[in-house]
Amino acid sequence: MTTVSILGTGNMGPAIAGLVQKGGHTVQLLGSNDTDHSVTGDIVVLAVPYPAVSQILAERGEQLEGRIVVDITNPLNFETFDSLTVPADSSAAAEIAAAMPNAKVLKAFNTNFAATLASGTVADQPTTVLIAGDDAEAKSQLSGVVTAAGLRALDAGALSRARELEGIGFLAITLAAGEKIGWTGGFAVQS
Amino acid sequence: MTTVSILGTGNMGPAIAGLVQKGGHTVQLLGSNDTDHSVTGDIVVLAVPYPAVSQILAERGEQLEGRIVVDITNPLNFETFDSLTVPADSSAAAEIAAAMPNAKVLKAFNTNFAATLASGTVADQPTTVLIAGDDAEAKSQLSGVVTAAGLRALDAGALSRARELEGIGFLAITLAAGEKIGWTGGFAVQS
Repeated sequence: MTTVSILGTGNMGPAIAGLVQKGGHTVQLLGSNDTDHSVTGDIVVLAVPYPAVSQILAERGEQLEGRIVVDITNPLNFETFDSLTVPADSSAAAEIAAAMPNAKVLKAFNTNFAATLASGTVADQPTTVLIAGDDAEAKSQLSGVVTAAGLRALDAGALSRARELEGIGFLAITLAAGEKIGWTGGFAVQS
Repeated sequence: MTTVSILGTGNMGPAIAGLVQKGGHTVQLLGSNDTDHSVTGDIVVLAVPYPAVSQILAERGEQLEGRIVVDITNPLNFETFDSLTVPADSSAAAEIAAAMPNAKVLKAFNTNFAATLASGTVADQPTTVLIAGDDAEAKSQLSGVVTAAGLRALDAGALSRARELEGIGFLAITLAAGEKIGWTGGFAVQS
């Protein structure tokens, strides 16, 4: 049994919480007013927009040490919808990992729209969660939580691949925002 | 009727040639020994590895002026499989467009494996060709060639989105090279 702490009660947090529960694991769902509750999860999902991550790290940095920390963000410039806000040769995940050298940082869920995590399908295809990170055991543990819920998980490589995952998330969001695809669609990974 | 000139007879060139013919359009397929044949197509597909593009531009630059030029490359560092060889804030397509200001440069086909262009399916899902570019009419014309062959085409936005498309191509290649997916699979775009 894995306990997953989810920080963020917006669109993605509850969708990931539902996935974790569906697989029979334990959820701790914390909002921005829950700063008096310490994180208890083996896995901690930062289910907030990228600009809000730094505050969480400031508030909960010590609680996150040694844990698996999952970055799900797509750091879009939402004013222009034309670029990411992280340096071009970096990624949100790399920035977070640099700020938390004692956590096992993974990138995951950022290429999945919330509805596809809740339903387990991208249109009529199985939802695949792409997971990047430098700690194989951490990736395996998150992968187990995802597959227990009936979704697919795929190891996308080292944490440096977060840059490409953020590119995929960026493009998926611009396609959906431009009504080229729906928010129940996106990229299905076909093996 | 559109004539499509395809420069490159490797893996992708013939697959794109087959697609064009399937849709009832005309193909001119040129290899590296065909430098005495001038390009005649309304659309010219640079179906060569990225390092070979500069030589084509040197040899055929004048012939390409005013035409729709399609960059299909994924400029991977094939020694490390860990980075692209273009600057992080740029893309192969942006570099090509800068070198050919009088051509209408599009990015397309780089997120599709050759087999999925030939079959029209990514595993059992329809193949979608993502097309980025700054010239709406050029995108529309290429889109027409793709859809005439029974595949889907999707406008992925401005040529600046080539950076994200190259990230998708990069990730798809590393997944297939790592045997996480097959070369008949990849990313299916679900609407």
